[in-house]
Amino acid sequence: MQVGDIYVSAPGKAILHGEHAVVHGKVALAVSLNLRTYLRLNTSNDGKVCINLPNIDTFLSWDLSELKKLIPYMSKREEAKRLDAELLRRLREFLDISNGSLDTCNMAILAFLYIYLSLFRSSELPSLKVSVWSELPTGAGLGSSAAYSVCLAAALLSVSGATPAPLKEWDHTARWCQEDLELINSWAFQGEMIIHGNPSGVDNAVGTWGGMLRFLAGKIIPLSRVPLLRILLTNTKVPRSTKVLVARVKDKINKFPSIMTPVLDSVDAISCTCEKVLSEMTSEPITGEHYNILEELIDINQHHLNVMGVGHPTLDTLCRVTLAKGLHSKLTGAGGGGCGITLLRPETDSSVVQTTAQDLKDCGFDCWETSIGGPGVQQHSPLSVKEEVLEILNGY
Amino acid sequence: MQVGDIYVSAPGKAILHGEHAVVHGKVALAVSLNLRTYLRLNTSNDGKVCINLPNIDTFLSWDLSELKKLIPYMSKREEAKRLDAELLRRLREFLDISNGSLDTCNMAILAFLYIYLSLFRSSELPSLKVSVWSELPTGAGLGSSAAYSVCLAAALLSVSGATPAPLKEWDHTARWCQEDLELINSWAFQGEMIIHGNPSGVDNAVGTWGGMLRFLAGKIIPLSRVPLLRILLTNTKVPRSTKVLVARVKDKINKFPSIMTPVLDSVDAISCTCEKVLSEMTSEPITGEHYNILEELIDINQHHLNVMGVGHPTLDTLCRVTLAKGLHSKLTGAGGGGCGITLLRPETDSSVVQTTAQDLKDCGFDCWETSIGGPGVQQHSPLSVKEEVLEILNGY
Repeated sequence: MQVGDIYVSAPGKAILHGEHAVVHGKVALAVSLNLRTYLRLNTSNDGKVCINLPNIDTFLSWDLSELKKLIPYMSKREEAKRLDAELLRRLREFLDISNGSLDTCNMAILAFLYIYLSLFRSSELPSLKVSVWSELPTGAGLGSSAAYSVCLAAALLSVSGATPAPLKEWDHTARWCQEDLELINSWAFQGEMIIHGNPSGVDNAVGTWGGMLRFLAGKIIPLSRVPLLRILLTNTKVPRSTKVLVARVKDKINKFPSIMTPVLDSVDAISCTCEKVLSEMTSEPITGEHYNILEELIDINQHHLNVMGVGHPTLDTLCRVTLAKGLHSKLTGAGGGGCGITLLRPETDSSVVQTTAQDLKDCGFDCWETSIGGPGVQQHSPLSVKEEVLEILNGY
Repeated sequence: MQVGDIYVSAPGKAILHGEHAVVHGKVALAVSLNLRTYLRLNTSNDGKVCINLPNIDTFLSWDLSELKKLIPYMSKREEAKRLDAELLRRLREFLDISNGSLDTCNMAILAFLYIYLSLFRSSELPSLKVSVWSELPTGAGLGSSAAYSVCLAAALLSVSGATPAPLKEWDHTARWCQEDLELINSWAFQGEMIIHGNPSGVDNAVGTWGGMLRFLAGKIIPLSRVPLLRILLTNTKVPRSTKVLVARVKDKINKFPSIMTPVLDSVDAISCTCEKVLSEMTSEPITGEHYNILEELIDINQHHLNVMGVGHPTLDTLCRVTLAKGLHSKLTGAGGGGCGITLLRPETDSSVVQTTAQDLKDCGFDCWETSIGGPGVQQHSPLSVKEEVLEILNGY
């Protein structure tokens, strides 16, 4: 077991193109969103396991002696492919969580203890403290639970020695090797299964690998190189049910198959065209025309999403407000409210960005200037963690 | 030659679905728009031919003796399929109209004298007075020139005795028989050729037959029965060039063929679905669901037209303002400004219609409550012509 402090972070996720169409066998492009979840893990000698989740006002600790009692119920297995149902049942009992509960706090704790116990099962359970702070809004379809699971997996695997912590003394940040990322991703997927029941695996893959992923018929293919794109991420804060929206699209396809099937084909072509343009942007000099095309694709897809019936007046407002500044926006994810992304061009002046963000906030939205296509899970030296995040993580 | 007063009217035209897509081999649905052009023709003995077009401040008259001098230059023909180039050249000379001129007044006069001379060529030229008044805005893509040509053809053919005037003593309005409508349409098409150069023939066909026409690859098929639909017709008054907009769509298809081709397919399916629903509405009891579908088709097509790049902020405003009253709108015709239609449901209260129209007028738009799918060219008894129209027509 490695001793000391470990800082890790993982990005959120946005769908650049192909939301909803992906349910009907079309390509979707998922990108890392550089609103990150940060985790600090420090080992201790106090015989306790503590977790602090200030975003959701959750601060818990357990004596190691209590947790040790759960170990005999764990099934013997090496692979992290399927959940250990017996361990999960015992953990629910231990935490007094009813079977159908999807409460965020409960699911976060359950995922933590499950990964912790599973990784240290064959060795002595270590005394440690984990604090997690996220820049991501929760429940907004931005992969906050996956970023949390990825951070947990990366930190706990590193402490267990299964995937050596990659940070060298002189580094600010460091990434794990491909093989270790696979292991981190598989454990993060377990966390997602606990939290979501039936996740696609896209969110944890984006949190692990970063950049952009092509998602098609359940297959996830990380794309080798993509440019970093500046965006505004806007949360309309209109709550929506992904399930209801997915059903709405399906109903519309069933009602108007001859009208809707070509729309899905067009969305598929948008994703493929976008992938091609982004790839070109890494292999040739980036021009204004690259950005023009990205903007056109955003506009077209936003119209198609409206055709699918997953638009919302607040999203129309987002598009109108940003277009007034010459910026192009689309919803990202399920739609029907939720979040939208606005592409910023390299030449977009920071004063334009500021006033646009303010205009959006004046509409009652949350708005962040961030980027997509950045790195996946990283280990940090404390120096490379933003001051305000460090303060929060070290405050417990 | 029949003597006395003749009142005729012909409707304008709106594209219900398929504008722009029709240029790329897809179906378009053209419907009659019940903003009508009214014509009064009365024969006289003063040896003059007069035309009064108060919409465009045009009031002209000629001595029969002058017009008779043009007859020797007319080619001998029975069929009204191709323009008589020599007559046209002489008429331009007579009226002092340069060859490239597309001035509305000039074209209207040219079309009138051409049809008048062509129809009476073999007989004595009659002394008569024609007054035309239209509810249609001109140059707004609503078929005002075709409605004018149809009225001219119907009235002059009736006076010449070629197509007996259908109105019986006890009738308020009457329609010509199918064979006579064919003749009216063919002469109206000549008028359109003079005014527009290379018309599709859709506008004069709608003005002649009314109801709805299916237009595909140059073929025009009148649909047997369609319901009358109440609408608001809004003119944003933003000027646009059809040529530029058609070129813009073509460029976009060339730039993104894999994305745009399915959009055209979807528009085609919208037209076909709409045609089916309208046909059902004449053969089975009309339900709210019929209107729901018509509204959904309008919304989807409006998004597709935006994808094609022929939307405009004023059209977005139109859609937003009407949607705030639960009403659905789309652009009609070339887009990029111009006109839009808003479907009214049978149960839409007249107070809602009034306030919506007022809201649109407050945006700076012109707005009319009218209907689509109504009758084509009609002969009227004076009693069946609206008071205010009668006053205008009889004022000259």
